[in-house]
Amino acid sequence: MAYGYMGKVLRVNLTEHTTQIEEPSEDWYRKYMGGSAVVGYYLLNEVDPDIDPLGPENKLIFATGILTGTPLAGSGRNSVGGKSPLTGGFGDSQGGGWWQVELKKAGFDHIVVEGQAESPVYLWINDGEVEIRDAEQLWGKDTADVEELIREEVGYDNARIVQCGRAGEQQVRYACVVNDLTHFSGRTGMGAVMGSKKLRAIAVRGTSKVEVADNDKVMDYARMMNKEVSDGNRSAGLMDTGTPGTVMGLQESGGLPTRNFQEGTFEGAEKISGQTLRDTLLVERDNCYACPVYCKRVVEGEEYDTDPVYGGPEYETIGSLGSNCGIDDLDAISKGNELCNRWGLDTISTGMTISFIMECYARGIIDADFLDGIEAAFGDADAMLKLIEKIAKREGVGDLLAEGSARVAEEIGPEAEPLAIHIKGQEVPMHEPRLKQALGLGYSVSPTGADHCHNIHDTGFVASADAVNIFGITEPLPADDLSSAKVRLMYYVTNFEHFLNCAVVCKFVAWSKRELLEIVRGVTGWDTSIYELLKVGERAATMARLFNLRNGFNDRDDKLNDRFFEPFEDNPLGDTSVNEKELQSARVTYYHMMGWDDLGRPTASRLAELGIECFEDYLIKK
Amino acid sequence: MAYGYMGKVLRVNLTEHTTQIEEPSEDWYRKYMGGSAVVGYYLLNEVDPDIDPLGPENKLIFATGILTGTPLAGSGRNSVGGKSPLTGGFGDSQGGGWWQVELKKAGFDHIVVEGQAESPVYLWINDGEVEIRDAEQLWGKDTADVEELIREEVGYDNARIVQCGRAGEQQVRYACVVNDLTHFSGRTGMGAVMGSKKLRAIAVRGTSKVEVADNDKVMDYARMMNKEVSDGNRSAGLMDTGTPGTVMGLQESGGLPTRNFQEGTFEGAEKISGQTLRDTLLVERDNCYACPVYCKRVVEGEEYDTDPVYGGPEYETIGSLGSNCGIDDLDAISKGNELCNRWGLDTISTGMTISFIMECYARGIIDADFLDGIEAAFGDADAMLKLIEKIAKREGVGDLLAEGSARVAEEIGPEAEPLAIHIKGQEVPMHEPRLKQALGLGYSVSPTGADHCHNIHDTGFVASADAVNIFGITEPLPADDLSSAKVRLMYYVTNFEHFLNCAVVCKFVAWSKRELLEIVRGVTGWDTSIYELLKVGERAATMARLFNLRNGFNDRDDKLNDRFFEPFEDNPLGDTSVNEKELQSARVTYYHMMGWDDLGRPTASRLAELGIECFEDYLIKK
Repeated sequence: MAYGYMGKVLRVNLTEHTTQIEEPSEDWYRKYMGGSAVVGYYLLNEVDPDIDPLGPENKLIFATGILTGTPLAGSGRNSVGGKSPLTGGFGDSQGGGWWQVELKKAGFDHIVVEGQAESPVYLWINDGEVEIRDAEQLWGKDTADVEELIREEVGYDNARIVQCGRAGEQQVRYACVVNDLTHFSGRTGMGAVMGSKKLRAIAVRGTSKVEVADNDKVMDYARMMNKEVSDGNRSAGLMDTGTPGTVMGLQESGGLPTRNFQEGTFEGAEKISGQTLRDTLLVERDNCYACPVYCKRVVEGEEYDTDPVYGGPEYETIGSLGSNCGIDDLDAISKGNELCNRWGLDTISTGMTISFIMECYARGIIDADFLDGIEAAFGDADAMLKLIEKIAKREGVGDLLAEGSARVAEEIGPEAEPLAIHIKGQEVPMHEPRLKQALGLGYSVSPTGADHCHNIHDTGFVASADAVNIFGITEPLPADDLSSAKVRLMYYVTNFEHFLNCAVVCKFVAWSKRELLEIVRGVTGWDTSIYELLKVGERAATMARLFNLRNGFNDRDDKLNDRFFEPFEDNPLGDTSVNEKELQSARVTYYHMMGWDDLGRPTASRLAELGIECFEDYLIKK
Repeated sequence: MAYGYMGKVLRVNLTEHTTQIEEPSEDWYRKYMGGSAVVGYYLLNEVDPDIDPLGPENKLIFATGILTGTPLAGSGRNSVGGKSPLTGGFGDSQGGGWWQVELKKAGFDHIVVEGQAESPVYLWINDGEVEIRDAEQLWGKDTADVEELIREEVGYDNARIVQCGRAGEQQVRYACVVNDLTHFSGRTGMGAVMGSKKLRAIAVRGTSKVEVADNDKVMDYARMMNKEVSDGNRSAGLMDTGTPGTVMGLQESGGLPTRNFQEGTFEGAEKISGQTLRDTLLVERDNCYACPVYCKRVVEGEEYDTDPVYGGPEYETIGSLGSNCGIDDLDAISKGNELCNRWGLDTISTGMTISFIMECYARGIIDADFLDGIEAAFGDADAMLKLIEKIAKREGVGDLLAEGSARVAEEIGPEAEPLAIHIKGQEVPMHEPRLKQALGLGYSVSPTGADHCHNIHDTGFVASADAVNIFGITEPLPADDLSSAKVRLMYYVTNFEHFLNCAVVCKFVAWSKRELLEIVRGVTGWDTSIYELLKVGERAATMARLFNLRNGFNDRDDKLNDRFFEPFEDNPLGDTSVNEKELQSARVTYYHMMGWDDLGRPTASRLAELGIECFEDYLIKK
């Protein structure tokens, strides 16, 4: 009896138009647990180095986790992974919602998509039955229309749908994967991979149940969290103002990304804050499966006729399309968010590519001619909206901007390159390394380039040390510390975050680490420990590292943009910036803690300690 | 409020005749927990390299742990440590009993003894009051007499006493520390260190209580184990036949050390088995504080007038003085045990030094003249008993034999050296590396030389993998495996064993790892995890390693005797032996898993990960 997982992996070959079902062992499920580690498993085993991420040799993996679909808040999540067209390395992005739960209820833990269809298709999974269907009629359509059309076609109003959007069809390198219209696996361009395979969507209907080992225990935890949240004891701020609630705190501490990270405070911060959003455009709060937190926003805007069916902006979107572009118009930002969701663009990379263009424009490196006549001044909301459309449709200059800021900078020339704030090709999300210095280290060594989704956020909870007490750390460490003690903290926390991306669990539901351990035990029945959970995360990170090394990355790619080595002027942070030498030293310390050598290459011994000797052949030999 | 510890360390300077009390922080207690790690802490901080272990600069540390003295079975234990006169490196040995519990009840977690008294003294600790008293009248006396005399003198019949015995007075390099007459911290010669300080004994009386954070939880566990044991569900074999119960199992599998490890089966095994002991000489079973297992034997022998006040032989003693010397006379072995206990000799090193001499004699390398006329043939019980007396009293050839087999071999010459079965100067205990191959690796890298007390015993429990499931290991591994997967298992298990020597807990009480975790949480109130417990053990092992490196040890000392690279003839093990190349490779894998470099030197990063950056200066620089 499988607890916490369904025991089946669906493999779909679009070139050959075939499907098959694989049944891994329980040991396999325990070792990888799901999400990021499952992505790593298939990429290492099946995706050769140097293949084109947008060619038929790439694989696209939809991976739920052992907690997905249990009755627990935060368990409605999955990973989407493949070789990234944005970074050329490990691609992996998590999203919440309902689709992934439906997939498990339909009998599958993971889907591995391979090959490339000749013409557009979608997948219809109905309680274990799988069909590859024609999708010509869906091609070029907005995400909401596609969802409606498929539901009509399959005859189930409640079928759950994941899709790549028009941006994915166009292989915009930072196209996201959209599920349930308002939930996204945003980063590393998995939408482009989906589009390159001409797989417009996967529709699912499932009626099975995810069985758990100890139902009473699991239900007790589920009820406890629901009560805690409804009593306002946990995640209360997220319910009230959603992730945009962080705008004002970051503004006050001087870490609100502004005008392409040139500044850390924004004069229009209050106008784009979570409080303002709540008090103006918000029409509804939304959630993921089984979650009482309702952190998601639904907005309606008259000025730009913003359609609430596409939800509302997260903090990342308000930062990247707002302060980061110098825009203080919440209506315009919400419209920008709607367009990204309608067409399937990652809002972070979209906003950061636009803010990069705006800085190039402000510095006179490019002019309006370059931009098809658009005057892309910081703060110009119309310019931002026009550029989004051009990108999604690859129209005019949009065809270049769709390549992502790193490639655009290369095209423009050396003057532009320092202004493209990306790591390994992926644009930096809305968290400031000068404020959170261990996060900066995390960005630089992350397998997916700049990514906040498996990273330490070393303010707040870390300062109290409560959240890491279970690892034996009892002393708080300040945010601007990059000592080896801080690296230790970062090593533990990021490995735990990687584990969360394997299990797969949301970080916004305020489960303690001990509760999560008990939940994993209750769901799976495994006699597991915090030790094993950390090792699951470390295993996932190590496998991703191996994949990157095989694809030509090395320690020199584990860098941070020069911008973060300079202090802001006139900022609450004062003259605080990341010290490049300290960062380099911290990086090597992190390598060693991960069991990697001075050049960031995993040792055979650490692979053995992680139980993945099977990948030893992929080690770059000294 | 301190839970699980008393908050006080007693420092006694015998040169200056002073005592003082130190009060470490709670963080300190949590980081080191007690036992081996506390020994390591004081040795690294306070004992300079190259000092004479038997001089005033050495320190002798008595360290209880955070579980010592709680109502839990197996919690009546402590470490005794210092620089070892046997190995010249890290000295540390755990023992059970009652004295250590009394010490905590008297208000102290640890005692650090420094300097050297001019004339014999003993320490009298009465509920927090400390007195250094004259011990001239105790010098040269048997351990039982000393216990009686001190109790009379302090006026408390129930005072608990730890002492070094006559062998300790004589600075026999493998003199043990004796507490409560029948409990021993046997290994690494801590009795000699105690004797060198002219500290004959420490008597204690205490009436405080060890407070625990969650009394109900702790009592539930205590009662549960007591019931499990009395119902015969756990540790039943140990109650029935004690540790000698293992004789027949080892005989059957071909791993019973026989005639100085030349053979692995003994024709007289049945005559010295735990079953035979139970059915003949046994007069009583004995226990440690709070323990329902009663694994200890009390024997009375007529033939040699063996005094039951000195308890009875453990398996280690039956092996080392029995099969290992070719002796099948349980009466004589019991007398040998009594003599060692009466005078304070480690039975393992004593037996192994004698068996070494017997092999030299058998091979004609030495003759009876060398041995003051004793014909030391294998199997000669009288020779064995005579040699014990000579060693304890340093009479005649005993003065040389008291130096331990490694030094004796050096004295005799090159022919003798391969016959001295020791690692780093400490004689190998009664567990056969050809049978348990990861244990052989453990011997070779152990900080105290050949030591079974923090080692993996990779038969039985490992084959089922149940005991290591909590680390995420689900597949059993055979005993003759030395793959990197086996090293991983050994890395986990030995670190956990090191933790047990910090907490300090007995391995013979069949607590599961999860129960131990819950116990530590219940006793201390700390939000700890299996992760932290493993790291406590790894920290202890790493600190011990640092101490050894500082004292001149290097990777070439991490070896195993050539004897174990050869198969036995005519043995159930067949032609199984340790493969030297495999062992070397496994050793480097172990180094790497420990975060050490190719030469076994801890990296600064691992020190940081263990939270002991404070010892970074002690790293040998590359």
